[in-house]
Amino acid sequence: MIKAAIFDVFGTVVDWRSGVAAVAERAFAAKSIALAPLDFADAWRGEYQPAMERIRTGQRGYVALDDLHLENLDRVLERFDIGDAFDAAERAEMNTSWERLPPWPDAAAGLAEIKRHVIIGTCSNGSIALMSRLARYAGLPWDCLLGADVARAYKPQPEAYLRSAAALRLDPGEVLMVAAHNYDLAAAAELGLQTAFVPRLDEAGPGTGEPEPTSDWTIIATDFHDLAHKIAERNG
Amino acid sequence: MIKAAIFDVFGTVVDWRSGVAAVAERAFAAKSIALAPLDFADAWRGEYQPAMERIRTGQRGYVALDDLHLENLDRVLERFDIGDAFDAAERAEMNTSWERLPPWPDAAAGLAEIKRHVIIGTCSNGSIALMSRLARYAGLPWDCLLGADVARAYKPQPEAYLRSAAALRLDPGEVLMVAAHNYDLAAAAELGLQTAFVPRLDEAGPGTGEPEPTSDWTIIATDFHDLAHKIAERNG
Repeated sequence: MIKAAIFDVFGTVVDWRSGVAAVAERAFAAKSIALAPLDFADAWRGEYQPAMERIRTGQRGYVALDDLHLENLDRVLERFDIGDAFDAAERAEMNTSWERLPPWPDAAAGLAEIKRHVIIGTCSNGSIALMSRLARYAGLPWDCLLGADVARAYKPQPEAYLRSAAALRLDPGEVLMVAAHNYDLAAAAELGLQTAFVPRLDEAGPGTGEPEPTSDWTIIATDFHDLAHKIAERNG
Repeated sequence: MIKAAIFDVFGTVVDWRSGVAAVAERAFAAKSIALAPLDFADAWRGEYQPAMERIRTGQRGYVALDDLHLENLDRVLERFDIGDAFDAAERAEMNTSWERLPPWPDAAAGLAEIKRHVIIGTCSNGSIALMSRLARYAGLPWDCLLGADVARAYKPQPEAYLRSAAALRLDPGEVLMVAAHNYDLAAAAELGLQTAFVPRLDEAGPGTGEPEPTSDWTIIATDFHDLAHKIAERNG
């Protein structure tokens, strides 16, 4: 019996690339900067895993993703040689682009369907602050915001999944981890969570997403509508 | 500028007394127990503050309210001499009565109105698990669940308020604490939060609620509709 479904968010629920690029496009236009916004979005996102890795390995204490994003932004602006163009207030404003990401077309309605059957929550590396504002922007009807900020640990560290299940007072086996990324599901499955793979083929541009499940996950769904149907079916 | 409104829940948003009594009434009827359900609800709630006090004073580490409620239930059943009537599974079921409390008539619609203007979250001593399930039951459209479980501290400990504001990456002065209890607002105001008093005159039975603000709180509202209006007005 699945009692809660918890979701990876960046890439699985929302389209970070288009969202970040849209904000960058406006910012660059205002300063006549000729950098391609999608390249900028890819470069900024490219700093994501390395920044968290220092925390996962204990080289650094837990710091919310909002702060890592801002540090990464500084680094990327320097790399593109446009560091002088943006002051601290403009960087802070640009950093909120992560709170203004469009949902994939099926995401908001699909989550509302899933919510009729089970508790739905985030299991993201994004902070409570970031997830709250993103949910308002994208119309995501979460019951709760779990993941990194609640666990003080970044996926795929075990605590990120286990403390999310524990925050709901559920056993890992009663919780379904949903992601478009096989590594995320592998980490969750290892701990006894149920798993659902939903491909997002265009995550970092057309055809860049993971097309196939790499293991025998509990559920394979085409989108969140299909996922709602399969959760309902499974729960009988 | 108010950027988020965070709410006391038991008594301010939902009617714990009717909700707990309704579950007890069914449980007692099934066992032909002649105890008045409202008296039982009052006795159970009477154990609430003493149980948290041991944690606030450091005599005991943080334990989620669900566990305290269950311990308190054991104690109250013994006191009424009906301890033998309920096994562990029945007690666990009765403990979920705190997840099935009716909202005050204006609460759900009023919260939806307030949500149009600012982030809305819980700042309750209830756990994330309890608040998630209660929100589903009562139709409360929270953006986020803050308070005791996020802070690992029970109101009116300062951490419960300050860590809730910090989880939203807001300064205390950007956050409005809403409660029907003056002591809760006094603790929040002391830390620099803004405050709103909404009377709930029938909290523990007709005429038992706090009728008046005891200090010059930021907002005094008659109900959540009035509160929505006054937040919008204040934010201009």
